[in-house]
Amino acid sequence: MPSYLPTLFVDLNTVRTNIQLMAEKCQRNELEFRPHFKTHQSTFIGNLFREAGVAGITVSSPVMAQYFVKQGWDDITIAFPANVNAASVYNELLAKCDLKTLVISTEIVETLDQRLQSPIGLYIEIDPDYGRSGIPASNKTRIVEVIKAIEQAEHCTLAGFYCHAGHTYKCRSAKEITSVSRKALAKLTSLKESFPHIPICYGDTPSCSVLDDFGPYDQLSPGNFVFYDWMQVEIGSCNKEQIAIWMSCPVIEKFSKDGKILIHGGAVHFSKEFVESGQEKIFGKVISDDGQLQGVLASISQEHGIIHCNREYFEQLAVGDTVQVLPVHSCLTANLMGEYRTEDAQTIDHMSAKAF
Amino acid sequence: MPSYLPTLFVDLNTVRTNIQLMAEKCQRNELEFRPHFKTHQSTFIGNLFREAGVAGITVSSPVMAQYFVKQGWDDITIAFPANVNAASVYNELLAKCDLKTLVISTEIVETLDQRLQSPIGLYIEIDPDYGRSGIPASNKTRIVEVIKAIEQAEHCTLAGFYCHAGHTYKCRSAKEITSVSRKALAKLTSLKESFPHIPICYGDTPSCSVLDDFGPYDQLSPGNFVFYDWMQVEIGSCNKEQIAIWMSCPVIEKFSKDGKILIHGGAVHFSKEFVESGQEKIFGKVISDDGQLQGVLASISQEHGIIHCNREYFEQLAVGDTVQVLPVHSCLTANLMGEYRTEDAQTIDHMSAKAF
Repeated sequence: MPSYLPTLFVDLNTVRTNIQLMAEKCQRNELEFRPHFKTHQSTFIGNLFREAGVAGITVSSPVMAQYFVKQGWDDITIAFPANVNAASVYNELLAKCDLKTLVISTEIVETLDQRLQSPIGLYIEIDPDYGRSGIPASNKTRIVEVIKAIEQAEHCTLAGFYCHAGHTYKCRSAKEITSVSRKALAKLTSLKESFPHIPICYGDTPSCSVLDDFGPYDQLSPGNFVFYDWMQVEIGSCNKEQIAIWMSCPVIEKFSKDGKILIHGGAVHFSKEFVESGQEKIFGKVISDDGQLQGVLASISQEHGIIHCNREYFEQLAVGDTVQVLPVHSCLTANLMGEYRTEDAQTIDHMSAKAF
Repeated sequence: MPSYLPTLFVDLNTVRTNIQLMAEKCQRNELEFRPHFKTHQSTFIGNLFREAGVAGITVSSPVMAQYFVKQGWDDITIAFPANVNAASVYNELLAKCDLKTLVISTEIVETLDQRLQSPIGLYIEIDPDYGRSGIPASNKTRIVEVIKAIEQAEHCTLAGFYCHAGHTYKCRSAKEITSVSRKALAKLTSLKESFPHIPICYGDTPSCSVLDDFGPYDQLSPGNFVFYDWMQVEIGSCNKEQIAIWMSCPVIEKFSKDGKILIHGGAVHFSKEFVESGQEKIFGKVISDDGQLQGVLASISQEHGIIHCNREYFEQLAVGDTVQVLPVHSCLTANLMGEYRTEDAQTIDHMSAKAF
């Protein structure tokens, strides 16, 4: 990526540390580490997980499973409810790897069973009050029905319970995350008492970053922690030093009157994800080389970004310089950018690399 | 794109009508039509503009200029303030096309002049109270300074004034758009009186869709109108029948209790752009085959979309069906999807096509 373009940088040392800390936490707690690859979507970074002892991985779509099967991963969970029309791609993947996915209803199990040629592992998705998808942890009648459907199916095996407590993203401190996570943990402890032999896989980055006691869980599948981002700092999952990626954006113009800076870096680079802090919308956080926060990416359009920063930093910057911006949502920024650079000019792959 | 995946469809008849209407409006008003290609980013759709008589185009980045130069376009405006570090790519482009870009300050003109090998056309960006970038239309002293700098430069020529009234996006009716556009028009009429021989290029889709009298303008460069989207309906620029693209998303699960539907279609397909309508956030608008609105895409995460729809439509839909969703922001959705399908299974190119 030439330096005149917005460029996504990754610090591999921070990535390795983030992986190592989570791998050690899993080891200490006797949890199988099945990291989610939807954040980095990278063969190279996938291999760093392999070096840390990871064998089974999690992805968010059939296409992502195809990408990582190509790189030799052979134990993959697509952490998305099964799509009955994707049976052909599941069959293709099943010929190459141990494939698992999620289900919520008996009907889906029965349809999949008819359309598959070899057994797929099915996690029953459990909703720990997030409200997006899954069977409520308390609805044991329905859970038993789905278990029975899986047991009766020729081409399905029960992989476990899969649980994503996405409502931790509404938290704004480690204490709040702990409180929300413990409520989910209590629900799943009760589930474990009813089904002691069924493994539980649990996933969100805030919980996995903050909790130290994982009670009934058997597997962890967080994804975002590999890079973290400014949203995770706001949530209380990490500190800014743990963020492993940043955008480098050219300074195009300075507007002295109101201390604003126009950068090349907009919605097609960062995504339109933002966090609110008081009255302020934050699309990214400006950080200088010495690690000090200097301002915010306060608004974006397709290619334009407007930075509000402190006066001293404003005076230091010149047109033609670049500014470093911590992304609000690293998964979406990486997906848009389609590649990473390291500070020693190495290019790191991303699944969504562009053809042009 | 296999039918089990979220797929972006385009209706080329609607595209042709949208192009034709704007081309005719330009002709009626004796305006040069220099459409913005940032919305479609497509060679194929670019050629539809060529068929409508368009010779000069507008893009939003140097990379996009490179893409369209390859397709034989030879009169291109990069409607983004000049990046002094991109001189090498400007030089490369200048060898192949008549290139124009925007400037705001004399310093940039002087730096560009030193770094360029042949003359670039420079539009002075004028801010009609949008507040993103540009010199306020009333600041004639600064405008004269920049004109002089361009006149003195060896490798720069004055292309005109470029004006994007992006604040029309805050409007919520055609009447409001007209009112905001007329204020911009008044400012630029006064500018035209001072500089009668300098062409004015004007751009936003809401203004260009609603206005019928373009007073001092010489060129029009709207982009979004080629597809429109739900945001433009909310703004008051168009009606839903004018929207030329939609996402087709698989129905993954139905949640009877609260009438919600889980689709495969999330932030990596639609973008996280939304519009607010009362208390409701709208990430997309669900439309049935007969053109009736049936519900909203009410929340999205990376791959998940949750639809709220009316009970009758809910009952009609089955798991395995697809739903059609009008995007909120067609530019960002198309950029993420990287290709279009037509209903007769033709694939239409997009610059951000993925390598995998």
